[in-house]
Amino acid sequence: MRDFLPADVRRREYVIRVIKQVYERYGFEPLETPAVENIETLLGKYGEEGNQLIFKILKRGIHETSGEADLALRYDLTVPLARVVAEYRDQLPKFFKRYQIQPVWRADRPGRGRFREFYQCDVDILGSRSMVVEAELIAAASEALVELGFSDFTIRLNHRQALTGMLLAAGVPLEKHDATLVALDKLDKIGRQGVAKELTERGVSDESGERLLQFFVELQSLEHAADIASGEDAKIKQKAINAAVLGRLIEFLGANELGARGVEELRSVVEFCGSFDVGQHLKIDPSLARGLSYYTAAIMEIAVKDLAGSLGGGGRYDNLVGMFLGQDVPACGFSLGLERIIVVMGEREMFPPEVIAAPADVMVTISSEDLIGTSLKLAHDLRSAGLRVDLYPENDKLGKQLKYAAAKSIPLVVIVGEDEMKRGEVSIKDLRSGEQRSVQRGSAADALLMALTQ
Amino acid sequence: MRDFLPADVRRREYVIRVIKQVYERYGFEPLETPAVENIETLLGKYGEEGNQLIFKILKRGIHETSGEADLALRYDLTVPLARVVAEYRDQLPKFFKRYQIQPVWRADRPGRGRFREFYQCDVDILGSRSMVVEAELIAAASEALVELGFSDFTIRLNHRQALTGMLLAAGVPLEKHDATLVALDKLDKIGRQGVAKELTERGVSDESGERLLQFFVELQSLEHAADIASGEDAKIKQKAINAAVLGRLIEFLGANELGARGVEELRSVVEFCGSFDVGQHLKIDPSLARGLSYYTAAIMEIAVKDLAGSLGGGGRYDNLVGMFLGQDVPACGFSLGLERIIVVMGEREMFPPEVIAAPADVMVTISSEDLIGTSLKLAHDLRSAGLRVDLYPENDKLGKQLKYAAAKSIPLVVIVGEDEMKRGEVSIKDLRSGEQRSVQRGSAADALLMALTQ
Repeated sequence: MRDFLPADVRRREYVIRVIKQVYERYGFEPLETPAVENIETLLGKYGEEGNQLIFKILKRGIHETSGEADLALRYDLTVPLARVVAEYRDQLPKFFKRYQIQPVWRADRPGRGRFREFYQCDVDILGSRSMVVEAELIAAASEALVELGFSDFTIRLNHRQALTGMLLAAGVPLEKHDATLVALDKLDKIGRQGVAKELTERGVSDESGERLLQFFVELQSLEHAADIASGEDAKIKQKAINAAVLGRLIEFLGANELGARGVEELRSVVEFCGSFDVGQHLKIDPSLARGLSYYTAAIMEIAVKDLAGSLGGGGRYDNLVGMFLGQDVPACGFSLGLERIIVVMGEREMFPPEVIAAPADVMVTISSEDLIGTSLKLAHDLRSAGLRVDLYPENDKLGKQLKYAAAKSIPLVVIVGEDEMKRGEVSIKDLRSGEQRSVQRGSAADALLMALTQ
Repeated sequence: MRDFLPADVRRREYVIRVIKQVYERYGFEPLETPAVENIETLLGKYGEEGNQLIFKILKRGIHETSGEADLALRYDLTVPLARVVAEYRDQLPKFFKRYQIQPVWRADRPGRGRFREFYQCDVDILGSRSMVVEAELIAAASEALVELGFSDFTIRLNHRQALTGMLLAAGVPLEKHDATLVALDKLDKIGRQGVAKELTERGVSDESGERLLQFFVELQSLEHAADIASGEDAKIKQKAINAAVLGRLIEFLGANELGARGVEELRSVVEFCGSFDVGQHLKIDPSLARGLSYYTAAIMEIAVKDLAGSLGGGGRYDNLVGMFLGQDVPACGFSLGLERIIVVMGEREMFPPEVIAAPADVMVTISSEDLIGTSLKLAHDLRSAGLRVDLYPENDKLGKQLKYAAAKSIPLVVIVGEDEMKRGEVSIKDLRSGEQRSVQRGSAADALLMALTQ
């Protein structure tokens, strides 16, 4: 877990501000939940591996020595949201559109853009089964990235039921689905032969494995062909690929009804997304599985080429609220990972220069013990005029004070010396140009504001 | 620990925004530290009672069953700051002026404005022993409260060395100081007789107890007298009281050098604060002790009449960084408690109306399955024009959709029906007046922006 010094905080706050503005433009409302949840709220929601990565908090007082935990640190923002919706159902609108930007904690091995404390920027819509929800979420997350300056991301889209249908159609029994998906997920990394070997090891029959691999390899070449055929417009190109993939998927699923319903939903999502500017980014990817166990329908993930892992992801989880409420509430959400976005933005130098601002507009010096009150008063008056003012706290040599301001990149310094005082003046030194001039004390604020805008 | 629904989050964000703006005007820079610290960093910094209130985190993986804790939740923002200053000394300016607004956790019994997860809004200046630092901190915290609309708070100011000097002058041996301060702290609540009894129980000699009580009761009547004598101007009145209290304090301290140094520093702080608008709020209070053990010199606390406990407090802690660095760095800080401020602001109805805003400016309806794409496109275009747009996600009856918008206090609704579509128009319904009119699709954004500013 990391400390964020001022320049880091400014970069983080900039990204959060942009994402928040986009989410609010889509009508999402802010929610915050506590860092700490009851341990039962979290256990069993993230799969066996997830359980292990939860930070658990010791009981307090006389129970401390028991070594037992009753509380735990938030692991994601989705499970707390489901708890909140179950708990405050009466106070929330029928369709609850909320965003939440808060840290979560996982006892994971740290890596590039992966930390044990990290921020998720979540948007979710609860209360509707309409695919309009998926389209709005994809558009909001995508627009946030565009506003931050990203143009080259891919939103991979798949569907849990289409996935189940595919595996059933290939003859993989339900209890082998998880293992099969883990293996298929590695196709890009370890190739066809590698995956085939792993499928065998995981007990998938050679025939089923071969059918699946055949299908995925075929999809890859189909994408490649469409890519070449449809000319230069990225949006049209991606549309053609998606249509071809959907068609092939339906063929493969054959009579599997569950899978066909999933494909129908995928088709709606793609169609609705056509109303937004996400055309060239949205890619149907039948190999996308996503780790979390609570997804029930559409799933999606955003990736850029220069980062392993994703910038964000999400999906539909129509049963999670039911685990708390005893009655299902349909829900779908999308989460952007703040740290990963910042890593890529930093490496690509995407931060606008004003984000790395000086900590103050002006520094006021102290020229003698007797003039401390005068400097304090001047700092006060300049602040009242709206300036961000640093006051050098000690009666040091002027050269030392000026050097300090320069090191902090503060552009302007006001010097209040004995001589100036007698004339009712102060000196303004512009550290960018080195120029120095005297102005009437009463017009110092105006002169500084003017100098700042130059 | 609590959940914050959208209206709560908006109030919290408003207060944080105002405090941040004031802190930045004073040249403070933002810092953030992780929620979780190594347990050794926190233990032994907050006294015995503090140790008990720390939330401790179980070791992970195979060490989990040991029942041991190696990490803990942040208990305040001062100790993490001291750790950061020791760790990043080379990267920080000589005078490090930082603010930090983050949650802390204490396993305390909850009460009014007191929670187990709460936010502290801290400002600290490290690197200088000048009393300019105390004055700037008091001014910044005070100005934050004024900007939030507070006018009736009191900043109580005392000094650890003056306090030690007083107790020594009264003949209380050092090892009885903590117990004596705890008893004296209750003078307002349990009266002179009650405190006398408690002092005896705690092993303070009758003579010492009597001298101290005599002194404090005298101060109270002195304040009362000055209060009456100095007329109506609150600033002049408080100045006279502070001068009288300082005078009486010096008398009482007699030859005690430590105490006299403390009083000299108090005098400087009061003098420097004279340059700011805090005159009528600043009150020297020789009975103020403050719980935390790391303070070494000036201590302060902000209170309002309608809240037991304080809105914030702080002080100088010149030795804390040394516990991490092995070399002392002078430091002084002030912390405002977000939750307490919000409790009082809520009760006094101090929040400006715009803080409780509608979640969106406009809601777009869906008139039929066939028109979903049209509504999505319209929502998209209105958002691009800068409007905050909610889209009703389902093809419900229009009446139901309008009722939903009204319940969410969304002022404007855009209806995209078959008939309107044919004419290239949309209908705008103003839910505040009930009026409805048609406009060209292309000028909908302008018409809505206009209607919003009415």
